[in-house]
Amino acid sequence: MAETRKAEEIFKEFKEHSISEFFKKNRQMLGYSGKIRSLVTVVHEYVTNGLDACEEAGILPDIGVEVKEVAEEKYKITITDNGPGIPSKFVGKALATILAGTKFHRYVQQRGQQGIGAAGCTLFSQMTTGQPIAVRSCTGTGKAFSCKIAIDTMNNKPVVTEMEDLPDKFRGLSVEGIFADVKYENSDHGVYEYLRRTALSNPHAQIKFIDPEGKESLFVRAVDKVPERPKPTKPHPLGLFINDLLEFAHSSESRKISSFLADTFARVTPNKVDELKPFAKTVDFEKSPKQLTWEDAESLIKAFKEVKWIAPDATTITAIGEEQIKVALKNILNPEFMNVVERKPKVFRGGIPFIVEAAVAFGGTSGRETSEGYAGNVLRFANRVPLLFDSGTCAITIAAKNVDWKRYSIDIDTQPVSIFVNVSSVHIPYSGVGKEAIAQEDEIIEEIKLAVMEAARGVQHYISGKHKAAEEATRYKTIMRYAKQLAQDVAYMTGSDQKKIEDKIEKLVLKHYPKVKENESADEGEKAEEAIAEEAEEE
Amino acid sequence: MAETRKAEEIFKEFKEHSISEFFKKNRQMLGYSGKIRSLVTVVHEYVTNGLDACEEAGILPDIGVEVKEVAEEKYKITITDNGPGIPSKFVGKALATILAGTKFHRYVQQRGQQGIGAAGCTLFSQMTTGQPIAVRSCTGTGKAFSCKIAIDTMNNKPVVTEMEDLPDKFRGLSVEGIFADVKYENSDHGVYEYLRRTALSNPHAQIKFIDPEGKESLFVRAVDKVPERPKPTKPHPLGLFINDLLEFAHSSESRKISSFLADTFARVTPNKVDELKPFAKTVDFEKSPKQLTWEDAESLIKAFKEVKWIAPDATTITAIGEEQIKVALKNILNPEFMNVVERKPKVFRGGIPFIVEAAVAFGGTSGRETSEGYAGNVLRFANRVPLLFDSGTCAITIAAKNVDWKRYSIDIDTQPVSIFVNVSSVHIPYSGVGKEAIAQEDEIIEEIKLAVMEAARGVQHYISGKHKAAEEATRYKTIMRYAKQLAQDVAYMTGSDQKKIEDKIEKLVLKHYPKVKENESADEGEKAEEAIAEEAEEE
Repeated sequence: MAETRKAEEIFKEFKEHSISEFFKKNRQMLGYSGKIRSLVTVVHEYVTNGLDACEEAGILPDIGVEVKEVAEEKYKITITDNGPGIPSKFVGKALATILAGTKFHRYVQQRGQQGIGAAGCTLFSQMTTGQPIAVRSCTGTGKAFSCKIAIDTMNNKPVVTEMEDLPDKFRGLSVEGIFADVKYENSDHGVYEYLRRTALSNPHAQIKFIDPEGKESLFVRAVDKVPERPKPTKPHPLGLFINDLLEFAHSSESRKISSFLADTFARVTPNKVDELKPFAKTVDFEKSPKQLTWEDAESLIKAFKEVKWIAPDATTITAIGEEQIKVALKNILNPEFMNVVERKPKVFRGGIPFIVEAAVAFGGTSGRETSEGYAGNVLRFANRVPLLFDSGTCAITIAAKNVDWKRYSIDIDTQPVSIFVNVSSVHIPYSGVGKEAIAQEDEIIEEIKLAVMEAARGVQHYISGKHKAAEEATRYKTIMRYAKQLAQDVAYMTGSDQKKIEDKIEKLVLKHYPKVKENESADEGEKAEEAIAEEAEEE
Repeated sequence: MAETRKAEEIFKEFKEHSISEFFKKNRQMLGYSGKIRSLVTVVHEYVTNGLDACEEAGILPDIGVEVKEVAEEKYKITITDNGPGIPSKFVGKALATILAGTKFHRYVQQRGQQGIGAAGCTLFSQMTTGQPIAVRSCTGTGKAFSCKIAIDTMNNKPVVTEMEDLPDKFRGLSVEGIFADVKYENSDHGVYEYLRRTALSNPHAQIKFIDPEGKESLFVRAVDKVPERPKPTKPHPLGLFINDLLEFAHSSESRKISSFLADTFARVTPNKVDELKPFAKTVDFEKSPKQLTWEDAESLIKAFKEVKWIAPDATTITAIGEEQIKVALKNILNPEFMNVVERKPKVFRGGIPFIVEAAVAFGGTSGRETSEGYAGNVLRFANRVPLLFDSGTCAITIAAKNVDWKRYSIDIDTQPVSIFVNVSSVHIPYSGVGKEAIAQEDEIIEEIKLAVMEAARGVQHYISGKHKAAEEATRYKTIMRYAKQLAQDVAYMTGSDQKKIEDKIEKLVLKHYPKVKENESADEGEKAEEAIAEEAEEE
């Protein structure tokens, strides 16, 4: 029997630790596991912040990314944007305090939502090379400055050093860090692919990338319009938990519960409050919201479910938009054929609105090349941010897998097909802190599946046409192989002209396989494709 | 063009928030997504803590779990253990401060390692029902008490109420909470299965479960021995990052760098320090560790890689053990045949030791029943804790998938096979805060794969024997179908006795298919099975 220890002895070691200490020990939870993934995570965090900042300031984003190998598995990563910059007063906390930022407490759709990403990069640089992050920032009109930023992990506080004024004003932010235990690779899960996908979902952004070999790639801006800034929104009553309602009530300035409800939540009018009353008879609507009890809140949440509501306001969500996706897909994948679907807003967990956009693209650089030809791939996005990792647990992957692709004449395993899905919401339920996958909420999976099926339906005619054409071409070739011999034999037997007989046979065969000819002309123009596209749209 | 906003305006909204607020908003990251999974997560957190506490105190664990439906999708969950209890002074923080506990700062193998789980349960109860957690605790000799515990999420602090002395002393902890937005289901991902697997990996624990219908299940203790308490260990030099080394140095009480190295890290002797010196010429080994610079640390980390080290001390890791796994598998799955493998300790990330145990079990209640018969399943464990969710991203699943099962005559899709894998380590690199999957560290995946292959090799003869027997039986039946007719015809033609001819034919056929007879006798005894097992062991 093992020696026993008393609780008193065990609890001598009881301690609290900071969130920075926690993530230092569990960096894989922030996306820092694996050398290639770790490098992409750094780029991902900074690019995401740059795009958010530009959009919030109403600026067309110009993003620069440079990855330079400074030693073995040690890279300098520099990201610049032309956004609003960060005032010097906030720059330390913004880049070196985990769980601090402008985004967390707002109820508005954004790429970032946690205030973890950039501070995580600072932590990772510090852990692997001991270097602080070098920052240059100017708000355009304010002071231009540079500084170095590290993180005091025991207290989760920034350590700002070498703060210096810069002579010339500019607008934007530049961050530069040295990271080790990372590796650049030009693969499906690498930085180039990440930026390519970012360009795909952000056609209004211009992205310049310089890779470790000095090769420059430019993802050109395809749309000259900043996306509408999503409006901050009030929470919808159906999306509330009891404790949310209580917290809103206790911090409310409204005089009565009735006015509190109408002031605080979307779709609540004074009339609606009257409608609620019979379903929450125990609640005194005249008392101060500060006096709302748990029982009151419970009754109200129940009452919310008894009345009819207008759906949450979808104008608070900005999807990419059908036209913009088309432009982007053409720009980046140049597919032979595609179909883009933007679905109507839906809600999950009762009242959190979201919008799914889906596209299926065929040909061009769709799908991915394999040793045996091509295979389909799923391009996952959340609020326009590409998700490259953890695909196995992501709602998008699961929804796409659940589609019966055969019904749409699509063979995911062998065809050059890309399935594009973007989920937009004020609150994306990511499965992990690293934000690489969307949690498996049933309502979201179902809606993605419907969107993908709708998109697939639009390409079905084209692909099954392609398929038939390919089949006919094979048969035609097989038969024509015998035609020459047949013509020769017939000519010999009948004494007619062999060439004439050959032509006649070819015409006969072509009558049976009309697609062979169509296809040839389609290669010249795009008539056949368009015809099929129209047909598909009529469906 | 959208209206532009200045940085000054945007950063007015800059705020910090607590880790509790963060997880309140992102409860899916703690495992609270999906009603069934959420319920299992609660049970998982408390049972894990109970087992850890018992083992640490050297007590054979008796765990009680009761799940009771109190309203629709609202359950009361009660978990009791016979562990050391929690002193009243610590009970609030232990159960209602995220990132507090006895485990985080220790370098010792345990199920829990973060100080998040139990506080997460308190948060979840509060979010969904507004109820505090009811606690009863006594350390055996100390005061027995009960209290209620909630969490002040804005400050991540406990709120302890109704603290009362209890008249009778006992030893253990009981926690009871009311949770909504959860659902009990008796499925592959449900509480019953979770406890069944917990029993499988903890044969020294006795677990009693009362389900919502009042049905009682007892997972009986199969081994009367508390596992050796893993010893706290010193970090191995090869597992250190530069910043780790710096932090150890700056908080060290040693007088010189040379003695600091020998005092702080495993496998460092004064001789080893001398061996390091030529590889770190710029480092002054005589100065105080408090004066260690980043450059010094970098040189030392490089030097560590130049000398030979004894592998990390594996006695700091307690695996389940081959015999114990056998007993547990027999107890729970009662397989026809199994093979258990305990591998030697390996390291990942340079110096973190881990041990993989793997087993392949065939028949009994191995695998899972499907509409078409059976299919194999993978039973994943980390430090004896069953992992039920996020299998797609788990190192164990990925390793098992990479095995070429055909080589071992195993058909995962149709056979009643269970693949059991337990990874033990001082630091399991979980992919998420919810600790449901092991991150994809290459070295861990590779080692799991080797372990599973080794386990599979041991059952190969048995399974291919089963397979051959089944094939022969089919052929035998097919041929014997004609034998009667043949015997009749031959008897007619030759005038001999039909029965005799039939018998002769049967004997002839059986000569070709000996396994048919073997199998019949095996059904009576277990001789054939044993013979094959021996054969497999001889390999």
